[in-house]
Amino acid sequence: MPSNKRWFKLTLAYDGTDFAGWQVQPGQRTVQDTLQRTLAKITGESLHAVASGRTDSGVHALAQVVGITTYSPLPAEVLCRALNAELPEDISVLSVVAAPDGFHAIRDAVEKRYRYFLRDGPGKEVFLRRYRWLWPTVLDDAAMHRAAQALVGRHDFSSFESKGAPRENSVRTVRELTVCRGAGDQQRHIAIDIVADGFLYNMARAIVGALVEVGRGSRSERWPGEILATRDRNHTGQTAPAQGLFLVEVAYD
Amino acid sequence: MPSNKRWFKLTLAYDGTDFAGWQVQPGQRTVQDTLQRTLAKITGESLHAVASGRTDSGVHALAQVVGITTYSPLPAEVLCRALNAELPEDISVLSVVAAPDGFHAIRDAVEKRYRYFLRDGPGKEVFLRRYRWLWPTVLDDAAMHRAAQALVGRHDFSSFESKGAPRENSVRTVRELTVCRGAGDQQRHIAIDIVADGFLYNMARAIVGALVEVGRGSRSERWPGEILATRDRNHTGQTAPAQGLFLVEVAYD
Repeated sequence: MPSNKRWFKLTLAYDGTDFAGWQVQPGQRTVQDTLQRTLAKITGESLHAVASGRTDSGVHALAQVVGITTYSPLPAEVLCRALNAELPEDISVLSVVAAPDGFHAIRDAVEKRYRYFLRDGPGKEVFLRRYRWLWPTVLDDAAMHRAAQALVGRHDFSSFESKGAPRENSVRTVRELTVCRGAGDQQRHIAIDIVADGFLYNMARAIVGALVEVGRGSRSERWPGEILATRDRNHTGQTAPAQGLFLVEVAYD
Repeated sequence: MPSNKRWFKLTLAYDGTDFAGWQVQPGQRTVQDTLQRTLAKITGESLHAVASGRTDSGVHALAQVVGITTYSPLPAEVLCRALNAELPEDISVLSVVAAPDGFHAIRDAVEKRYRYFLRDGPGKEVFLRRYRWLWPTVLDDAAMHRAAQALVGRHDFSSFESKGAPRENSVRTVRELTVCRGAGDQQRHIAIDIVADGFLYNMARAIVGALVEVGRGSRSERWPGEILATRDRNHTGQTAPAQGLFLVEVAYD
């Protein structure tokens, strides 16, 4: 085994609008494919980039963590500059740092934070429409926050898992779940932060969808906790659209 | 002459990214064409929409003013709601109000404010790239502001007029020209406000381009005033890209 194999941890921001998600798919523009092609161009190697999690089509990242291994002798800072120069304008490399031997961006992640942005009330929002769920009436954000607290803790989140990607088990620990309305000129913007040790497929967007049902007055504040207990996705309701969702932080030990 | 002809003043915001500017052009998606088609659908009439000024391809509007005349009996607030329901998500109607008989959005405008947004310094900005000129080094905004003051007042702005759309005369009065860096998390954003009684073709973007030459240190603070005096566009340098420019306000007596 060559002794010059090196592990790097990349942190990326990307605008998910024009990507078909993270993962390579034939004939689609994806973040992984774009990154891997650029890495190949820079290093001359065919590299496999492993993200902390696959973001869906249209989902954004403020700080996605990606692991790569390479035999390239390029220093981290040179790799970072070269990537930013070569990558398209909707992907930014925030940092490249040496990672411990064997670093694995999925397995080693201990916590992730997603943030979902809504903009509520009448009127259109032409400049933020790619980055917000525009909800046409005023939502009761305080009721949403109270309702959300029933989901905090270690639970079976089957009720908030979309079909199509079954996991070995659906138990996850939500450590924090806050619904916060902005102040001043941000008063029509609501941020929903979900921090967990892991997320099932579409879990963040299913939770937001359920909380909006509470915020609009269609469901009671007890309802999200009740559907959690059913462990049945059919009771949960709508899935929030992708364009409001941002992967904000991934924590490692 | 029918007595039920009515004048309306519409105020629009639009994201210019996906429009080939304001003016109707065959085979192009333009704001005027999109608006006129929607007005025709709502009123059953073929209407001509007159904007305070034609914004170029990629230029945005926070408050473009548009005049229409119609025989439709629809009240202003109904017209506003119908337009917002029918227009695409990158055009928002902020208001529709009755205008005086004979109102003309171009001729009656007495002042316009354009704002140009730059984001300076290293690093990429994936979420604002459609709405900022990303300048890779840190600009001296104080020097830009001082240099700009030579352009305030009544002058022949031929040096800042692009060829292709000659006006009867090139004398305009710039009432205000400020270069202002944001604070806090806006500290890498620079706003350049230009208030004038009228703007020549590409004048705002040519002024910004010249000020950036000062801000980057390529030209002295005296240079914008000197090129103003030459009345020769060939000396002015680059034109700032469209995506940073916003029409912010149009004033009427």
